[in-house]
Amino acid sequence: MSAPPARSPRVGVWLIGARGSVATTVVAGCAALTAGLHRPTGLVTEGPAFAGSGLPALTSLVFGGHDTTDCPLPKRAEQLAAGGVLPPGLPTAVAAELAAADRDIRTGGPLPGDTRTAGELITAFTEDLRDFVRRHGLARAVVVNVASTEPAATGTALPPSSLYAAAALRAGCPYVNFTPSTGLHHPALAGLAASSGLPYAGRDGKTGQTLLRSALGPMFAQRALDVRAWSGTNLLGGGDGAVLADPAAAAAKNAGKERVLADTLGTVPEGEVHIDDVPALGDWKTAWDHIAFDGFLGTRMVLQTIWQGCDSALAAPLVLDLARLTARAHETGRAGPLTALSFYFKDPVGTAPAALADQYTALLRFAHALGDPE
Amino acid sequence: MSAPPARSPRVGVWLIGARGSVATTVVAGCAALTAGLHRPTGLVTEGPAFAGSGLPALTSLVFGGHDTTDCPLPKRAEQLAAGGVLPPGLPTAVAAELAAADRDIRTGGPLPGDTRTAGELITAFTEDLRDFVRRHGLARAVVVNVASTEPAATGTALPPSSLYAAAALRAGCPYVNFTPSTGLHHPALAGLAASSGLPYAGRDGKTGQTLLRSALGPMFAQRALDVRAWSGTNLLGGGDGAVLADPAAAAAKNAGKERVLADTLGTVPEGEVHIDDVPALGDWKTAWDHIAFDGFLGTRMVLQTIWQGCDSALAAPLVLDLARLTARAHETGRAGPLTALSFYFKDPVGTAPAALADQYTALLRFAHALGDPE
Amino acid sequence: MSAPPARSPRVGVWLIGARGSVATTVVAGCAALTAGLHRPTGLVTEGPAFAGSGLPALTSLVFGGHDTTDCPLPKRAEQLAAGGVLPPGLPTAVAAELAAADRDIRTGGPLPGDTRTAGELITAFTEDLRDFVRRHGLARAVVVNVASTEPAATGTALPPSSLYAAAALRAGCPYVNFTPSTGLHHPALAGLAASSGLPYAGRDGKTGQTLLRSALGPMFAQRALDVRAWSGTNLLGGGDGAVLADPAAAAAKNAGKERVLADTLGTVPEGEVHIDDVPALGDWKTAWDHIAFDGFLGTRMVLQTIWQGCDSALAAPLVLDLARLTARAHETGRAGPLTALSFYFKDPVGTAPAALADQYTALLRFAHALGDPE
Amino acid sequence: MSAPPARSPRVGVWLIGARGSVATTVVAGCAALTAGLHRPTGLVTEGPAFAGSGLPALTSLVFGGHDTTDCPLPKRAEQLAAGGVLPPGLPTAVAAELAAADRDIRTGGPLPGDTRTAGELITAFTEDLRDFVRRHGLARAVVVNVASTEPAATGTALPPSSLYAAAALRAGCPYVNFTPSTGLHHPALAGLAASSGLPYAGRDGKTGQTLLRSALGPMFAQRALDVRAWSGTNLLGGGDGAVLADPAAAAAKNAGKERVLADTLGTVPEGEVHIDDVPALGDWKTAWDHIAFDGFLGTRMVLQTIWQGCDSALAAPLVLDLARLTARAHETGRAGPLTALSFYFKDPVGTAPAALADQYTALLRFAHALGDPE
Repeated sequence: MSAPPARSPRVGVWLIGARGSVATTVVAGCAALTAGLHRPTGLVTEGPAFAGSGLPALTSLVFGGHDTTDCPLPKRAEQLAAGGVLPPGLPTAVAAELAAADRDIRTGGPLPGDTRTAGELITAFTEDLRDFVRRHGLARAVVVNVASTEPAATGTALPPSSLYAAAALRAGCPYVNFTPSTGLHHPALAGLAASSGLPYAGRDGKTGQTLLRSALGPMFAQRALDVRAWSGTNLLGGGDGAVLADPAAAAAKNAGKERVLADTLGTVPEGEVHIDDVPALGDWKTAWDHIAFDGFLGTRMVLQTIWQGCDSALAAPLVLDLARLTARAHETGRAGPLTALSFYFKDPVGTAPAALADQYTALLRFAHALGDPE
Repeated sequence: MSAPPARSPRVGVWLIGARGSVATTVVAGCAALTAGLHRPTGLVTEGPAFAGSGLPALTSLVFGGHDTTDCPLPKRAEQLAAGGVLPPGLPTAVAAELAAADRDIRTGGPLPGDTRTAGELITAFTEDLRDFVRRHGLARAVVVNVASTEPAATGTALPPSSLYAAAALRAGCPYVNFTPSTGLHHPALAGLAASSGLPYAGRDGKTGQTLLRSALGPMFAQRALDVRAWSGTNLLGGGDGAVLADPAAAAAKNAGKERVLADTLGTVPEGEVHIDDVPALGDWKTAWDHIAFDGFLGTRMVLQTIWQGCDSALAAPLVLDLARLTARAHETGRAGPLTALSFYFKDPVGTAPAALADQYTALLRFAHALGDPE
Repeated sequence: MSAPPARSPRVGVWLIGARGSVATTVVAGCAALTAGLHRPTGLVTEGPAFAGSGLPALTSLVFGGHDTTDCPLPKRAEQLAAGGVLPPGLPTAVAAELAAADRDIRTGGPLPGDTRTAGELITAFTEDLRDFVRRHGLARAVVVNVASTEPAATGTALPPSSLYAAAALRAGCPYVNFTPSTGLHHPALAGLAASSGLPYAGRDGKTGQTLLRSALGPMFAQRALDVRAWSGTNLLGGGDGAVLADPAAAAAKNAGKERVLADTLGTVPEGEVHIDDVPALGDWKTAWDHIAFDGFLGTRMVLQTIWQGCDSALAAPLVLDLARLTARAHETGRAGPLTALSFYFKDPVGTAPAALADQYTALLRFAHALGDPE
Repeated sequence: MSAPPARSPRVGVWLIGARGSVATTVVAGCAALTAGLHRPTGLVTEGPAFAGSGLPALTSLVFGGHDTTDCPLPKRAEQLAAGGVLPPGLPTAVAAELAAADRDIRTGGPLPGDTRTAGELITAFTEDLRDFVRRHGLARAVVVNVASTEPAATGTALPPSSLYAAAALRAGCPYVNFTPSTGLHHPALAGLAASSGLPYAGRDGKTGQTLLRSALGPMFAQRALDVRAWSGTNLLGGGDGAVLADPAAAAAKNAGKERVLADTLGTVPEGEVHIDDVPALGDWKTAWDHIAFDGFLGTRMVLQTIWQGCDSALAAPLVLDLARLTARAHETGRAGPLTALSFYFKDPVGTAPAALADQYTALLRFAHALGDPE
């Protein structure tokens, strides 16, 4: 990334899971856009409605993060290009930016055999964050969790995602949870979050099947059609496929998917959601939905949808959107749950509409308010 | 239908194509609902948002219409029940109401060999309408075109749908065009429509593929995804299948389908729409859509939808909605194109939003205004 | 059923699960065909290739069976007609035949609280069978298991399906297992089956997704395409939906589905099979398959199939086929596993080809041999 | 390609349309396989059943051909890799082989403004072929037409595909028509073909939708299910998409598709086939099939299939198969239509079975016979 104009303050984006597919696509993609190699397809905040919102420019973003693996970002990008996730040639074209971000990745935890206490881990992560801000002279840094989904928390111990969230709060960083992991949603962090004065957003980025459900559910409700059963199967092969094929890990994710139906239909239809790990699909996912509904006089009808998308390519621009919006929310003094960002999440914080169109309206209103902070 | 309460004025619903599948389902369905045999699934105007709109009660509706065939409604209903379009047993249960409506069906035209001029036909149709209103002591009658789609008009002669529309105006009846046929959209009728002081609505009921497109198109636009191609194939076997397999007849319908994409996406993607006549499917239709879109960094993704519905069951409740809404618009003194009813149409009159959610918002606002006419 | 010609011996068809959807459709359907109300669609043995096989005529079949519920067949048929499984009007048209079969249904077991031992149950079932043959003067009776799938057997106790199978052997009746239940596949019955001199066939009728797999699997193998993953989801709402949603019950069924892939592809691809209970679908089932395969130079391609069928209508003609073929096998002195009937089963007995085309060839060869018993 | 063993005679493969996607994939793919870069997925003749057939080794094949465009093969390969048709890196890895084949491509015709007569063109093409054989010291050369589909021939003039076919005959080369173009199927060439003593095969490679139909059609026939309607839509964006969207050009192709249904079902069901040009899809094609069929007692059921494949990757290995088989047929003295190759074609020459399984059996028998020419 070339140096931003002198007056533009630099903003950090600290990615939990910084060596994963999503994070790699975020870093490579941002570099590709600022270099003019690609149009900003999928990036909502590059639309005209956000021109006056005062969002940090893409050129002002500085990337770093935590991860527990050690494959360098340039190599991860090559792997993604071989799998068709990144365009061929892109890893080479943005090799410098990938290497720069890689130098700002710190070892996360707990690692296997790690004997540090939760408190010690939080302290270490906080120090990594403060160091990142200090070294780059950042105006602020947003922490975004894009790590693989962790199993549902059991007991009262803080799961890793909550350790990182606690570190974000302690370092004074706004926090975005793009996964269904616990993060800030832990009782032990509620008081800290409230008193921190920081804005935060989440949970679980809405990238495919649930995005579609939040667009289609309202249609059935508006037309007074009676959805009897809504069944779905997801096939995916990236890291999340293996994790989510475990029912315990999938529970949080599926709760978000069901909430969308319940909230948009006003009722919970029959039907299950399956998440299958299919390594042959790599980072590509296929979601089949079968919706059995009754029409006039009880006539039975069916809608089926098949969504074939690339998980990282769907998630990455939303991560950039959220980092920019949350950074600006922080800059303008907003605190607490950013319910206006429900457009981006399966299971949004706070009280937010469930229909995609209403969420979009709320987002546009927020975009306007951000530009006119008084 | 049992007699309505004394003070409730009776309202006529005059169906062009009164012996067709849609009309038969409208009459049988309204009777089934008022008899408590079925819940009002698919009937938007039975929702709580319309409770205060002053709409005519279903029990106050009186049905009649024009048709050029002579199969009695009770027999048509039996045919539809045999094909799974109406529930088994319903034709018997509402035989009296079907027979009553059948007595109010008049012969339309022009019939083969008919030597009447356009003016004579309009006069005859107008008289049929006035007679219907008079005999039943109706407060008003709404004319709804649910006849098979006619070929695109060539030359300046008025096509049949326009003859019926002209008769509606002359008889002082609000007019709804549920088909893509010309109806009021004829230059020769523009002045008459404007000076009539009557409300009207149309064109082309949005019952399946286009309904779906108006719900999904905005999703792509809101997420800044780049729709490259939107292709579709419709298979249907009822009367409309045979008519619309003719490219000339399908032209108007397809124009409406394309308008939805252009208006919601802001661009016209590649792709065609096919309408195939498949008699084996009877009144059931299947619509397959294939949407090729680019995401972040140009990654190619695909959404496919398969909609399997019963055309008459999808259309009939919308016809009842439109008749009630238009009757109330007339009662409250509204005139001209009812753009607030764009929710119901592929190719709405006037300047209306194209996204389904926005159309629904406009409808709710209209519902509120109808109840508070001052 | 009208009386068969004098010389035609009557053949019994004894259905385990005689009040279920499949059995009801078998009895009603056979009556409809012999009355000339319907063409024999789906009945393979009515084709010209079987004309010389000496199969018992449909008019010679006499139905009875065991069940643990007590809803009379005529009423079950009405329920099925209301759900669209049987044509409207058929229950009335064949009421006499349904009532006749109903009189030949005996109470199965063990019922809840039943204190009879396995031996006592087998004795009771055997006596029911012998009585059926005796009363009707049958040349023979074939026992066909069409009951709901039972959970995989645990321990050494005989599950109910095996009790019925043992009774069939003891009564000298050929046996067909149309379900994945244990039936004759119990070690305790192996000796008895071998020494009985009776023909038997099974297991698990191939009616939908697996039928399709056995037609498509060979295509990939023949074209040297590399199937990487074959995933599937079944939605069904009839009795089997509830039973098979239980992983223990589904295990046997899924083993059969996987065997087809392994045998036709020569390898076991990635992918899972789900069976969801969706009561809203009633007796209709939907199966979605997603097949990810590699072509030339590793190019990734996908085939998806969606099968929407009526379970009972798919199964019933196969049951009639199997009853006729097995009866004739018995008549011509055949004994042991009828591997030539693999065409009909997910998990065929004996060593049989897995590709549908090869199974059909074997069936035709068998049909020829049956007509020419030396 | 490294030099073949000394005793192995070299065999030419002369591609009409030598700069197209299919031809480029053939040349690049053969080089990749012989270099051990990829496994021979999709190449039927590399299977064990063909080990003793005496087919020419892949290393012995020499490529050349005619085309009317002049984009060099190495550049075409780069374009295909950018579109995901060839693996990234392959064009570089086999650059030498692509350049070698490119040097053996001669200008075809007639070009725009070309004033040569049909006879002159045939003479020129024949000379190109003879020169190719002579320069490389080939034992023989097989001519394979993989050019874009040409419009259905009108009048008696020889279309270009027939000019090339005539040249093949005159040069003593076996001929394979992988397209639906006329080629040898012209009355003016019938005598020449018969007297040439050369083997030939065609027409129209069976790569996607029709392959599937030839696998599924027999299933319905074998199960005595009554196919009422078989409808299909193809979306494709490569060169063939533009050509086949023209109804005249599509006519021959669709005739082949319908023939498969008629021959496997024994009846022609309702339904149409559409071919849409969707440039956004590039070389990828999607075929949706909707099959409405009746089961037992007329119960209506539906199978839908969605095939998403890469046209060139599907075609290329079949072209290599056909070149090897036809070369060996020539070597072993076979002449006339090779009906045993119906496995590969939509519209096979001669009298051949239509069911894929039967075609495969015939192919295996042929493979065996080729190895044992006496």
